[in-house]
Amino acid sequence: MYHVPPLDRLIEQLERLPGIGHKSACRLAFHLLNTGEKNAGDFIDAIRDARERIRECEICCNLTDQPLCPVCRNESRDTAVICVVEDAQDVSAFERTREFQGLYHVLHGAISPMDGIGPDRLRIKQLLHRAADERVREIIMATNPTVEGEATAMYLAKLLKPFGVLTTRLAYGMPAGGDLEYADEVTLRRSLEGRNEM
Amino acid sequence: MYHVPPLDRLIEQLERLPGIGHKSACRLAFHLLNTGEKNAGDFIDAIRDARERIRECEICCNLTDQPLCPVCRNESRDTAVICVVEDAQDVSAFERTREFQGLYHVLHGAISPMDGIGPDRLRIKQLLHRAADERVREIIMATNPTVEGEATAMYLAKLLKPFGVLTTRLAYGMPAGGDLEYADEVTLRRSLEGRNEM
Repeated sequence: MYHVPPLDRLIEQLERLPGIGHKSACRLAFHLLNTGEKNAGDFIDAIRDARERIRECEICCNLTDQPLCPVCRNESRDTAVICVVEDAQDVSAFERTREFQGLYHVLHGAISPMDGIGPDRLRIKQLLHRAADERVREIIMATNPTVEGEATAMYLAKLLKPFGVLTTRLAYGMPAGGDLEYADEVTLRRSLEGRNEM
Repeated sequence: MYHVPPLDRLIEQLERLPGIGHKSACRLAFHLLNTGEKNAGDFIDAIRDARERIRECEICCNLTDQPLCPVCRNESRDTAVICVVEDAQDVSAFERTREFQGLYHVLHGAISPMDGIGPDRLRIKQLLHRAADERVREIIMATNPTVEGEATAMYLAKLLKPFGVLTTRLAYGMPAGGDLEYADEVTLRRSLEGRNEM
């Protein structure tokens, strides 16, 4: 508390951001106060502009500023495989691997009764619509390996069954660079179950 | 890179904030996109409002939204002692100790030729003006224990000499809760030099 209302209010607003504690909020507040007028204006404009222009891709619900997202616009992608993820950030994580050539479907969350997020809050209708396209061969469930992500994957797999499309789930196992000593039991058990011949 | 210009621009702006790396910037960007319209508006208003209303205290140059800062407005403070600090955050650090009852003087930086910050960029003229007041008995140099903070303290002490006011410097030594094993040599040497009878 600096007992200067506009400053305390700014710090309070910054503390609401994810991953920002009180000390970081103070540091950010002083930076935003001391930075030049142009920098502050650019920062505010970037927030406003992004909020105004960004919407969901008409095909996969990924975030974009055009009717279709960059992946769906790319004609060289394999339209037979759809990778279902929870958030737009997950699309970016897969793109960084440069491994996956198919399309995505962004659910914008996972089913979580504890947080009041039911299936109706997710982009499931759009996924079923895409699954009905006969060109789609495989749908990969790439929701997070959490209770909510698992529940969502199972729920979707059940819904997709009548479409006769192959539904797969990401492999479980040890993360690369991980340490067996510190691995939790569920991860270890699953990496044993899923062992492969060398 | 999300290849969605308004989103990439927002992330780039967030990355310029102190202590915010690329991953945090992405997380903050998605939060700012997904939060409600009122929350986003409140956030932007808090930045604008703080920038418009916050100015420097007419006495000590601390940040305030009124002519005088909360410390200088408080009539129960001891006006005979002035604690000179680099930034407004340092005032708040001292106030948390509930130990110091005097007034402050905020320099808004430290002399740093490497960064092109000369004495003319600091609130030194205002400090000399205050030192001329015969009620002032002591001026404590509480700049940071860094090369720049030391240089600033020495420079000010020299300037203040003709005023015949007592000039003191914060004590050096081991930080509370610190570990001797990990203390640097300068700190250890100074804590030896400054040892007190028990």
